[in-house]
Amino acid sequence: MAEKPQKTLARLPRGFVDRSAEDIRAADRMMATIREVYELYGFEPVEQPLIEFTDALGKFLPDQDRPNEGVFSFQDDDEQWLSLRYDLTAPTARYVAENFERLPKPFRSYRSGWVFRNEKPGPGRFRQFMQFDADTIGAPGVGADAEMAMMMADVMEALGIARGDYLIRVNNRKVLDGVLEAIGLGGDENAGRRLTVLRAIDKLDKFGPDGVRLLLGAGRWDGGKEGEGDFTKGAGLSDAAIATVLGYIDSTAGEIASEKFHEGMGELRDIEALCRAAQYGPERIKIDPSVVRGLEYYTGPVLEAELLAEIPNEDGQVVRFGSVGGGGRYDGLVSRFRGEPVPATGFSIGVSRLMTALKNLGKLDTTDVIAPVVVLVMDRDVESLGRYQRMVAQLRQDGIRAELYLGGAGMKAQMKYADRRGAPCVVIQGGDERAAGTVQIKDLVVGAQLAQNIADHDAYKEARPGQITVPESELVETVRRILDAQAEERVRG
Amino acid sequence: MAEKPQKTLARLPRGFVDRSAEDIRAADRMMATIREVYELYGFEPVEQPLIEFTDALGKFLPDQDRPNEGVFSFQDDDEQWLSLRYDLTAPTARYVAENFERLPKPFRSYRSGWVFRNEKPGPGRFRQFMQFDADTIGAPGVGADAEMAMMMADVMEALGIARGDYLIRVNNRKVLDGVLEAIGLGGDENAGRRLTVLRAIDKLDKFGPDGVRLLLGAGRWDGGKEGEGDFTKGAGLSDAAIATVLGYIDSTAGEIASEKFHEGMGELRDIEALCRAAQYGPERIKIDPSVVRGLEYYTGPVLEAELLAEIPNEDGQVVRFGSVGGGGRYDGLVSRFRGEPVPATGFSIGVSRLMTALKNLGKLDTTDVIAPVVVLVMDRDVESLGRYQRMVAQLRQDGIRAELYLGGAGMKAQMKYADRRGAPCVVIQGGDERAAGTVQIKDLVVGAQLAQNIADHDAYKEARPGQITVPESELVETVRRILDAQAEERVRG
Repeated sequence: MAEKPQKTLARLPRGFVDRSAEDIRAADRMMATIREVYELYGFEPVEQPLIEFTDALGKFLPDQDRPNEGVFSFQDDDEQWLSLRYDLTAPTARYVAENFERLPKPFRSYRSGWVFRNEKPGPGRFRQFMQFDADTIGAPGVGADAEMAMMMADVMEALGIARGDYLIRVNNRKVLDGVLEAIGLGGDENAGRRLTVLRAIDKLDKFGPDGVRLLLGAGRWDGGKEGEGDFTKGAGLSDAAIATVLGYIDSTAGEIASEKFHEGMGELRDIEALCRAAQYGPERIKIDPSVVRGLEYYTGPVLEAELLAEIPNEDGQVVRFGSVGGGGRYDGLVSRFRGEPVPATGFSIGVSRLMTALKNLGKLDTTDVIAPVVVLVMDRDVESLGRYQRMVAQLRQDGIRAELYLGGAGMKAQMKYADRRGAPCVVIQGGDERAAGTVQIKDLVVGAQLAQNIADHDAYKEARPGQITVPESELVETVRRILDAQAEERVRG
Repeated sequence: MAEKPQKTLARLPRGFVDRSAEDIRAADRMMATIREVYELYGFEPVEQPLIEFTDALGKFLPDQDRPNEGVFSFQDDDEQWLSLRYDLTAPTARYVAENFERLPKPFRSYRSGWVFRNEKPGPGRFRQFMQFDADTIGAPGVGADAEMAMMMADVMEALGIARGDYLIRVNNRKVLDGVLEAIGLGGDENAGRRLTVLRAIDKLDKFGPDGVRLLLGAGRWDGGKEGEGDFTKGAGLSDAAIATVLGYIDSTAGEIASEKFHEGMGELRDIEALCRAAQYGPERIKIDPSVVRGLEYYTGPVLEAELLAEIPNEDGQVVRFGSVGGGGRYDGLVSRFRGEPVPATGFSIGVSRLMTALKNLGKLDTTDVIAPVVVLVMDRDVESLGRYQRMVAQLRQDGIRAELYLGGAGMKAQMKYADRRGAPCVVIQGGDERAAGTVQIKDLVVGAQLAQNIADHDAYKEARPGQITVPESELVETVRRILDAQAEERVRG
């Protein structure tokens, strides 16, 4: 039996995606704007590689010799564990610790790049995604946190998001920890329950105070009633403890017996005062007790940038878009390497998520990128190809995107190709034109309009012909004229 | 015994490096120029993720269930092998094969990104580096290969490399295979020896014809004489075979008995004719029989972009810089997925290497990036911080890079910080200035000049004071005036 050679399957692992021209262009523009704001604030670009020692990322579980779940890891030749970074903060902390002596302090830096999560992917949840971070390391006071909040507000407005359509929400991990302490959930032995309580608070937006109450108590049925949908086990707090937490969330709590809480509240008041002094009002930056932020390494103020506009999400549902970035103070991350306290704070923008939002808000139009003019290939001898080649070279010298059709197909397929590419026009020179020293230029935009608008056909065609034959020496200026006419038409309508 | 908590070591795995602000800015500018040329030629950006199925990269050795050496690989939850891409070509082939039906053909795309090699690193050899590729897929004729050569010449000139300082060298894998066939090295059983011969030819630049003769024969001592340095075993060819290969290299060979050779030579002649017809002379694009290109997947024309200028390399030695990119035809890569022939050709620029060359040629100056103005913090109460915050906000609103000093140090350390940052000037408002409604602005460039040039001290100081006190309302215009004066001075030299 003859064996058929096995074809390799062309596919991507789940959670990974290709990026289209439109997405790349939109992301590049968006990131150029973010970069401008970061630069204006005096941050400098510095980038770390995508691979680090696993222990430098802080991803080893105690008493285990395999890295934590959630990161892509592999062993080097010398058996040491390496990992793909899961965010940009841990590598930044490693970099600053490694170069501590020679860096100016505070060290203000920014970076964008791919990060990886070895997690179950879902809609809008990828295993590779891009972040764009800014970090201030070596600044102990909350002035640095306030600055992050203000800079993120500036980023939102620089991207064209109207005031009122976004909100920078600020909280403090110390305040949350203080509340947990006050209801008796301090200490290592309560780490699990603390997490359950924080997750419940984090659901305020989604389920409202009544939902949070259930999650703090016995638990909550997804369907709203007992037995409907899935059941989420609650934190099992006492009624008094639940009242304290809910009172904290809606700012009606009485005295909370925790020093940490009061220290945290004082910091929040200072952040608020600094923002107000710099004319950032509560419609832009708001202290909000329900902000939790998941990452375990935050030690002080935490921030979240939220889009309030109701726009379609990745799945096309019209909803309040929600978080497009977040950050906070991570005083422990650099210290881990240095053995001395090194205060640090930062912010991370989720590039794909923010881009999706901006596209849906109509703020990232890339239709001004013009597809190339296509020079068709009528004769395939080397001499003719050389002549066509000269034509595209002339167009390019004038700054006009142009290409020679390089496939093997005939005239009809070449026209179809130009169409699929969205070419503004094609250039044709067959034997007759060549003998006459001319080229034929077909305006594909007019062509498409003529095909749609039979009524106006004659008048329109007279005003602007869909096809024109000119001396070869007038190729560039004629194409330029057609492009200009099309540009004018785009502006008009 | 009390245990001291163990510090994590802040270091990178070998072969990985951080990127400085200067390198990032230089690379971004260079890549913007390359992108412009690619776009002008009608190529569109499309990007693939950094992780692919190992088999999609073509990196499984037969009869082995572990991926090939040279790539970073790891198993997914479902036991399938994943790898970090080792170039941009293999993922492009996967992408085109996967989306074949809906893509216009020929499909012209470009992409930049990090690639990874799990190899022993060395000077200028990293395990993560950046490539910037363009590919034309679905174009069977050598017109596509000629276009790649011309586009690369255009890229070099767009980057400011003078004609004569670079050369695009073109060869054909078919020609090389034909020569090997003619000397009896056809067939699978000679794969190893073929590689040795190709490697020997590749060393022509380095060792000259005599060195290549030794490598084709018994072997070569690194020191030049027997027993000196390391010994490289040769291909062990007969004298007649060596004469054929050397004759091929210097184009003095008589008839070479191989159809493949003649087919390849014909393609090279066509490429040459197409380039000449488009006015690209031999000082820019040259057919060169010694170009080999290592990658096993090339099937036809191969290209190399070489810098001829003698400039310092990464190690500071002044040498002919050599290859900054290469490419060629890889007709088998997409076919592997499709089970039908899909012609393809592409080119890859080594971003770091080309950037090193351009920096050494003085073509990538980033000194026009101005460091931020630093507003010093004299009083640390929230009200004062708020005032300082307003000052930086005003400067930024005028487009001036500015930052508030956010560290914990006193006046002297703050001045030192501004110095290390390269700040053009600092803004100071202590209690006295505040009471008088003024700010003091210190011009740090003048300050540095005054410190160096004691002779001219008085006259200079009068012409342009190193420090000035102005009403708070004139802060922005005064800083702007200082920046303008500094810019003018930079231009004057």
